[in-house]
Amino acid sequence: MADPAAERAEDAVAGLDSVTVHTEAAAALDAPGVAAVLIASPGPAHEEALLAAFDRGLPVLCEKPMVPDSTGALRVVEAEARLGRRLAQIGFMRRYDTEYRRLKALLDGGSLGRPLMLHCTHRNVSSPAGFTSAMLINSSVSHEIDAARWLLGQELTAVTVLRPASSAGAPEGLIDPQFVLFETERGALVDVEVFVNCGFGYQVRCEAVCEAGSARIGDEHTMVVTSRGSAAEEVAQDYLVRFADAYDREVQAWVDATRRGQVTGPGAWDGYAASVVAEAGVRALETGGRVAVEPAPRPDLYAEVSR
Amino acid sequence: MADPAAERAEDAVAGLDSVTVHTEAAAALDAPGVAAVLIASPGPAHEEALLAAFDRGLPVLCEKPMVPDSTGALRVVEAEARLGRRLAQIGFMRRYDTEYRRLKALLDGGSLGRPLMLHCTHRNVSSPAGFTSAMLINSSVSHEIDAARWLLGQELTAVTVLRPASSAGAPEGLIDPQFVLFETERGALVDVEVFVNCGFGYQVRCEAVCEAGSARIGDEHTMVVTSRGSAAEEVAQDYLVRFADAYDREVQAWVDATRRGQVTGPGAWDGYAASVVAEAGVRALETGGRVAVEPAPRPDLYAEVSR
Amino acid sequence: MADPAAERAEDAVAGLDSVTVHTEAAAALDAPGVAAVLIASPGPAHEEALLAAFDRGLPVLCEKPMVPDSTGALRVVEAEARLGRRLAQIGFMRRYDTEYRRLKALLDGGSLGRPLMLHCTHRNVSSPAGFTSAMLINSSVSHEIDAARWLLGQELTAVTVLRPASSAGAPEGLIDPQFVLFETERGALVDVEVFVNCGFGYQVRCEAVCEAGSARIGDEHTMVVTSRGSAAEEVAQDYLVRFADAYDREVQAWVDATRRGQVTGPGAWDGYAASVVAEAGVRALETGGRVAVEPAPRPDLYAEVSR
Amino acid sequence: MADPAAERAEDAVAGLDSVTVHTEAAAALDAPGVAAVLIASPGPAHEEALLAAFDRGLPVLCEKPMVPDSTGALRVVEAEARLGRRLAQIGFMRRYDTEYRRLKALLDGGSLGRPLMLHCTHRNVSSPAGFTSAMLINSSVSHEIDAARWLLGQELTAVTVLRPASSAGAPEGLIDPQFVLFETERGALVDVEVFVNCGFGYQVRCEAVCEAGSARIGDEHTMVVTSRGSAAEEVAQDYLVRFADAYDREVQAWVDATRRGQVTGPGAWDGYAASVVAEAGVRALETGGRVAVEPAPRPDLYAEVSR
Repeated sequence: MADPAAERAEDAVAGLDSVTVHTEAAAALDAPGVAAVLIASPGPAHEEALLAAFDRGLPVLCEKPMVPDSTGALRVVEAEARLGRRLAQIGFMRRYDTEYRRLKALLDGGSLGRPLMLHCTHRNVSSPAGFTSAMLINSSVSHEIDAARWLLGQELTAVTVLRPASSAGAPEGLIDPQFVLFETERGALVDVEVFVNCGFGYQVRCEAVCEAGSARIGDEHTMVVTSRGSAAEEVAQDYLVRFADAYDREVQAWVDATRRGQVTGPGAWDGYAASVVAEAGVRALETGGRVAVEPAPRPDLYAEVSR
Repeated sequence: MADPAAERAEDAVAGLDSVTVHTEAAAALDAPGVAAVLIASPGPAHEEALLAAFDRGLPVLCEKPMVPDSTGALRVVEAEARLGRRLAQIGFMRRYDTEYRRLKALLDGGSLGRPLMLHCTHRNVSSPAGFTSAMLINSSVSHEIDAARWLLGQELTAVTVLRPASSAGAPEGLIDPQFVLFETERGALVDVEVFVNCGFGYQVRCEAVCEAGSARIGDEHTMVVTSRGSAAEEVAQDYLVRFADAYDREVQAWVDATRRGQVTGPGAWDGYAASVVAEAGVRALETGGRVAVEPAPRPDLYAEVSR
Repeated sequence: MADPAAERAEDAVAGLDSVTVHTEAAAALDAPGVAAVLIASPGPAHEEALLAAFDRGLPVLCEKPMVPDSTGALRVVEAEARLGRRLAQIGFMRRYDTEYRRLKALLDGGSLGRPLMLHCTHRNVSSPAGFTSAMLINSSVSHEIDAARWLLGQELTAVTVLRPASSAGAPEGLIDPQFVLFETERGALVDVEVFVNCGFGYQVRCEAVCEAGSARIGDEHTMVVTSRGSAAEEVAQDYLVRFADAYDREVQAWVDATRRGQVTGPGAWDGYAASVVAEAGVRALETGGRVAVEPAPRPDLYAEVSR
Repeated sequence: MADPAAERAEDAVAGLDSVTVHTEAAAALDAPGVAAVLIASPGPAHEEALLAAFDRGLPVLCEKPMVPDSTGALRVVEAEARLGRRLAQIGFMRRYDTEYRRLKALLDGGSLGRPLMLHCTHRNVSSPAGFTSAMLINSSVSHEIDAARWLLGQELTAVTVLRPASSAGAPEGLIDPQFVLFETERGALVDVEVFVNCGFGYQVRCEAVCEAGSARIGDEHTMVVTSRGSAAEEVAQDYLVRFADAYDREVQAWVDATRRGQVTGPGAWDGYAASVVAEAGVRALETGGRVAVEPAPRPDLYAEVSR
């Protein structure tokens, strides 16, 4: 691991075996056993780290922005192109969001026809200190830039930025909100409301308006697809879909607790209680009447119902 | 790893180092380096495996049902109680679902007052072969039994099962749907519609009706809390909340691809494209006009927009 | 018009021509020009008024309950049956609610198959003084009794009432909430949560669970139909559907204002402003640029934008 | 009544007493007993009719557009200004829509702070024959022009029209959809997607983005207000609010049926059935058990459950 602040790095890897700590990225890349690189440093440090990884043939996951200025970004592109094979994945994480992936799959499937417009909303509760008017574009809207390119499979060809009256909730001098319009190579229009001091919540929404319907994500529920007279949300067909994350969290919670030498979550008493209630339920089904549940006394080891 | 079918077990662990395969649970537990046990065998095999783990002082994650019959389940409780410390976590995974956890936190927070009723829905598209009328209770509703105990922090004290006309979509002889009523020790009422051949989707919903409001989960969107004249959904305050799963999936996708020797996802060209569009956006903000985006030619290495 | 309180009646009809006021229902029915009768008196007065209207062959709209006790209600039925033709319409107004009518049409259309269950919610903010535990059934749930009979086209054949712990928000001694279960002649099950001191709102909901889908009304939005993997709301096809009530209100507001000698609502300046902006818009469409709107000065007669 | 097509006019007023038919508007205005005028002729005929009504001091409800061109519209404004009192109400019916009125009341109430942007959607299934690209602005968007002025209480000062790729579903040569941007006198931005051949539904939506929250109408449910971490819909507090339209429809249905000499809707048998079921319900409440419903035989006059 490399971090210019060695102490911070030591803290981060405490308890992990076989990790060495470095203050120079290059030294870390040369450490034995390094098979891949994750770059999460500030943007201006990315170019050097990326080129160093390319030199060593190491695969890289690099946080966005890949490189803050396009000239430096182009140098990275050219270096990788010279290698002739891809090594870098860039951290545009919306491509991995469930709702965005559904929208992408729907658009690619073609059932709604050609996309004509994307209406996007990008709201933050408040902007961090030092956030500039330009950063609404190159830090916030950069997510929509990538998402629009990816969803539409088209490059963006022109941009216009409108300035509604700024909110009283924005810091003095910050142009916030802004309304950004992108044109694409095949004539689609992308509009983005970016409002980084909206005060009320973090909201990322996207509506794709197509020739035969519209689909919207981000409204505190699953994707809503409007077509032929109905506005519909998908209903899961399977518990593995509905509870996928719960299964992951359950096992992770168990692993974490076990590592700490603890046992948490539902326990044997809960398992027993479920059995004894279910048995009463089956008798109630068979008899048609009301059946009392009569468990054995609860050992002191167990709370009434475990948390 | 233990599995009575050795070949299946060998397949499951292919590629993992330092895993030995056994056909007997006891042998697997005695293998060197075993620190914890995950039991995912059929229910009737659980009791023996749990007791064996207890004998060895090993922490266990055991799939539900802990033990199918309450007599056997009680033996497990008593064995763990004799040990005097908890070793078993039971696989009631709803306690790890985001929506259920929000509901639990809301009820525990007390802002809605005392819960009076839970209205639950548990629907499956279709039941597997061999599913019996009793299994609607002891396999399906057992999830609601644990969830109700956990959400309310109360034991269930009586149960009644009503039988509406069975659906034509249910297999001959299966009593489906059923409507199950539970009473709790402090007077709450829990009703569960269980309908395992509903045909249209997997739906798990729960509405908690309290003295000062109601909260509902499971309707294809986030928890809706009704109180004092409004029905409200929470709006995330932070991208780490909204996109938590996306960040996890992004890193996992990168790890998986790297292990396969591949690079997938957004690449250097996408990083460059974002930079060059953002720069045009900042100029558009500054000038108030429309600014064309003029990227360098795209090297052949890169598709137009990476998938 | 008849009202035992003559003064109240005189107030009610003030300004209406050709209306005579009576303190006896019979006298009002015998007044010249009476062609039909609307009974909105307290329930115990209904039977006498209905029979008097039947005697005179007058059509009647009678508020619910038709007659509070079933013995008296049967006498009304028998009297009308002797006449051999229907004269009475009873005030079960839910049959005229847009959402209920959609649900009824959907169930009758048969696309969701046979209804198996109705899950109903009936919540009031608070109960009026003197409201008794029996009135939760015979005043509140009587709406669901009629709605269930009408939606299902079946008579109800049995009833059970469960009593969860009463809310601290209910008056001392009132059993509130109650959970009422009805069985129907063809085996459907109807459950009703009635909670007349819920504190947070007036909520009337109904979910019909059928063999091939489920439909729900009353959740602050239009009917949601769940079937084959989607939960869908209907999208209007026409402005006459979407804005039907707005057109009615517009004309009614104009008639009311005109009768008062007033002019309200959008006025000539608003008509002019729309023209001048639209003309600028058409020029903007033609030129592709930004076009300023340049209206004539606003005469003093008009506020900036009329309310 | 005036209509250049006398026969059509005669049909329209058939059965109404004291209505005379004319082919000239002026003649109709001079007919005895005319107290007010409703103008629903094509737009080009409005100016003459408005001025004639002004000459006679008659209040007028005039359909939109008041006058298609702004020069003629200004003549109407000037004529009314010379009179010194308002006589004309213009048919911008959205101001009378329940959702728009809620949004207007919310914005005027000030709880969300100053409005900064309105995001509007105006979609039709298909455009009528002869619909031109300019008509998307001066016929369709004219509704948003008035709604924006009214909601914001501000005049619109500039307009820009963007043209995404036109839909394959639009007639040859029609620029559809269009994306229209309005600026207002106090710096708010109004964007309107107008798409008159969207194919899937009639959708009119409006989101007002303010300094302290956002409110949205038109999404198949009631107004959603997002503020301080929650997205909330109002819950009615009263049955008079929830069922206002049902009560109106009920009485209107009764009046209409009575005029036709018919009786429709719920009848005496339904009133009796409700009584007998409610009585069984009260007994079930008192006894805690299941109570069978035992009605008298149904007279032949009544269907099982009236429609």
